[in-house]
Amino acid sequence: MINKTQLHLARAGIVSDAMRAVAEQERRTPDYIMREVAAGRIVIPANFSHTSLRPIGIGRVLKTKINANIGNSSMHSEADSELRKLQTALEYGADTVMDLSTGKGIRHIRQLIMERSPAPIGTVPLYQAAAELEDIRQLTPQTLLSVIAEQAAQGVDYMTIHAGLLREHLDAAAGRLLGIVSRGGALTASWMKQHQMENPAYSHFDKILDICRQHDVTLSLGDGLRPGCLADASDAAQFAELSVLGELARRCREAEVQVMIEGPGHIPLDEIKMNMERERELCDDAPFYILGPVVADCAPGYDHITAAIGGAVGAAHGAAMICYVTPREHLGLPNDQDVREGVIACKIAAHAADIAKKVPGSRERDDQISQARADFDWQRQFSLALDPERARQMHREALEQSRNQGREEKQNKENENSPPARDNGTEESQDYCTMCGPNFCSMRVSRETLGNKSTKLDPAQTPEESERQQ
Amino acid sequence: MINKTQLHLARAGIVSDAMRAVAEQERRTPDYIMREVAAGRIVIPANFSHTSLRPIGIGRVLKTKINANIGNSSMHSEADSELRKLQTALEYGADTVMDLSTGKGIRHIRQLIMERSPAPIGTVPLYQAAAELEDIRQLTPQTLLSVIAEQAAQGVDYMTIHAGLLREHLDAAAGRLLGIVSRGGALTASWMKQHQMENPAYSHFDKILDICRQHDVTLSLGDGLRPGCLADASDAAQFAELSVLGELARRCREAEVQVMIEGPGHIPLDEIKMNMERERELCDDAPFYILGPVVADCAPGYDHITAAIGGAVGAAHGAAMICYVTPREHLGLPNDQDVREGVIACKIAAHAADIAKKVPGSRERDDQISQARADFDWQRQFSLALDPERARQMHREALEQSRNQGREEKQNKENENSPPARDNGTEESQDYCTMCGPNFCSMRVSRETLGNKSTKLDPAQTPEESERQQ
Repeated sequence: MINKTQLHLARAGIVSDAMRAVAEQERRTPDYIMREVAAGRIVIPANFSHTSLRPIGIGRVLKTKINANIGNSSMHSEADSELRKLQTALEYGADTVMDLSTGKGIRHIRQLIMERSPAPIGTVPLYQAAAELEDIRQLTPQTLLSVIAEQAAQGVDYMTIHAGLLREHLDAAAGRLLGIVSRGGALTASWMKQHQMENPAYSHFDKILDICRQHDVTLSLGDGLRPGCLADASDAAQFAELSVLGELARRCREAEVQVMIEGPGHIPLDEIKMNMERERELCDDAPFYILGPVVADCAPGYDHITAAIGGAVGAAHGAAMICYVTPREHLGLPNDQDVREGVIACKIAAHAADIAKKVPGSRERDDQISQARADFDWQRQFSLALDPERARQMHREALEQSRNQGREEKQNKENENSPPARDNGTEESQDYCTMCGPNFCSMRVSRETLGNKSTKLDPAQTPEESERQQ
Repeated sequence: MINKTQLHLARAGIVSDAMRAVAEQERRTPDYIMREVAAGRIVIPANFSHTSLRPIGIGRVLKTKINANIGNSSMHSEADSELRKLQTALEYGADTVMDLSTGKGIRHIRQLIMERSPAPIGTVPLYQAAAELEDIRQLTPQTLLSVIAEQAAQGVDYMTIHAGLLREHLDAAAGRLLGIVSRGGALTASWMKQHQMENPAYSHFDKILDICRQHDVTLSLGDGLRPGCLADASDAAQFAELSVLGELARRCREAEVQVMIEGPGHIPLDEIKMNMERERELCDDAPFYILGPVVADCAPGYDHITAAIGGAVGAAHGAAMICYVTPREHLGLPNDQDVREGVIACKIAAHAADIAKKVPGSRERDDQISQARADFDWQRQFSLALDPERARQMHREALEQSRNQGREEKQNKENENSPPARDNGTEESQDYCTMCGPNFCSMRVSRETLGNKSTKLDPAQTPEESERQQ
């Protein structure tokens, strides 16, 4: 029996196990998910061969997903460090992971990642093809197709293919300040110029579709002409390519291959909404998978923040998935700590957008943590935090600092007539935080004044609650 | 001769030195600044007694300003550490600094801050009043007025006064999940409840105006009912107070006292625009000074990012100044490192908004750094970064990591037939970065393909340029 793609099944009115799983995660009916998959507004990247996969849905009506890029380069190539990054990315909430390796042992690293990841794995096959050649200009269409076939057989769930960048776009790109900053785009442009031929991913697109359909690989149509700086944002080159991506998305659907579209890039805040709408219009509402957008060029070292601003606004206006940007973007390959910072920043952006879009259940965690704040229940606050370890650590540091200062002051001022110091207590028993101290704790004063309900200090508390406070 | 407030002068058609200085910074005509000050859409907080001040303008038509809060608490009270934070805040780009001290030596610390700061200094006089009493409920209107007078005489440029929170608002606030999270608001509410009297800052507002006019202290009308969590956002309590703030703003203008309005708080992304518009409408376009807004409750440890998202969107929709939020918000008092992180995140938000609003000159730095990227001019890239030290450090770490790995690999694989390793070079000579390595550097490939102009590798380069590459 030949396996059928999710798109094929949905169109045939069949609810797959994957659709059912997505429906449960997203608190929707299986039927709804099926209809949206059929319409191409949701994709479920799930290669038949990725047996450890826990399927997820990507679409603007669902929770915004986030992707973390890992992978070595020709200059960094330890498998262990990539697996650590995979673990970190998953631990802090990445929904999908792209292995962008271009260094040694690409196949081996990808195999290890595939085995360990319940999250969908994406790749850029052109990177492997380029890495295995002396020079990208030696590439043949057949090489590219065989790398795609190999990765599809290995279980890769989605692949970035830069099929929309055509020879006719190169003139427009040449006038840019930063030219082509997408790696796949630059490599493709270099090949086209050398051979004076059309982009092989475009001219052989039907063959790519055949491979993808066979394994249910979701295509992620890459934006080779994404702007690399604000000066190049929303230009003719970018939108010319996007228009071709729309045409290719229609061909994907005809072939019953799931498809999403990749988006910018560096875009000023006021152009993000327009960019999101343009994609929907040109690509028939295929899920938009955005990188950033980075809303300023001048913050190297902090581009996880610059991208979080753009990502939140992009997702609130309809992007389905955000690719993380780490603090080391523009400066070097991220290390494990950078992955953590990048994932959390991106998660915040996605979460803020979900709240704005009123995605079912998206504000529950916030309301719970706010209740924990009202209750001065620090442990519950930490456990509900996106990064419990960081929250606990920062609180502990502040407590220690205040204890040390308290001791010093006591020694220095033993003779002065100052009010007796309050014991700072422990994390668990405090009904104020070190930010303001007890007498300036607005929450404490507010509760005393307004009589807000507090489960913690409520005289009617249960023994269990009381015990928890010890 | 009695000094006249900026608002008085502007209304009289007089361009002050301060207005002229602001015009120059903002690339506007002095006349334009004068007219906007006269209309109350720009304030220039400049106490006659703050002699070291370099005046700045705050208004939505100008560059978005950012404020950093420093100040000790009853639990942390070293003057040195506050002065270090002041230095850090100014170094990384804070436009104004608020001293929120509530601990020991308030006057002394403020005096040191006033002497050292060319940036306008703000305070919350109620904090000093409360700190000097055993209990806030002992406060008398006279105590409050005398603290305001004392601080005004000391040179404080703007003061947060929570005059809009009235007794009639307390019922609405009592129904909230988090009650009153503003310290000034909670203290005021506590006083009103105890005395069964109206807010003294409201009932004695005319006397406050007299003091402010005498020293040209700008009033920053505090939002004692700002929402402390998403569940409390944009509620009746918040907007009832905002309406009173609008009334008070009109009284300020009648008294020729400059005024700005403080705003939320925790607000979901989709309600920010509405909140900005509501303020403009209710407060006749008085400059809006926002805290965050924080767009999610569940990211303690990362609230500088949560706030940067809200701040960027808020400023793009008309807020004039953003108060920073540090990563330690909700967890403890910020240390020096937190101040740096908070200021930069806030700066990114303000800058992104300025680009979106097309404030004159706002994109120049971005275009310059992008040009430096195109030229592989790392030093210039670092020097144009919002935090040059961080950018340089992250790049250096990545270079070192790649050198170490290169060495190890060379030792491990000496017998293998791998292509010869390229020397990684130094920061200055690299025409690629460690993110992708030389063969995968899109910028390098793009330049070779498209022939983008590069000053650096241009054959017609000058001897100086050539030398720089060695």
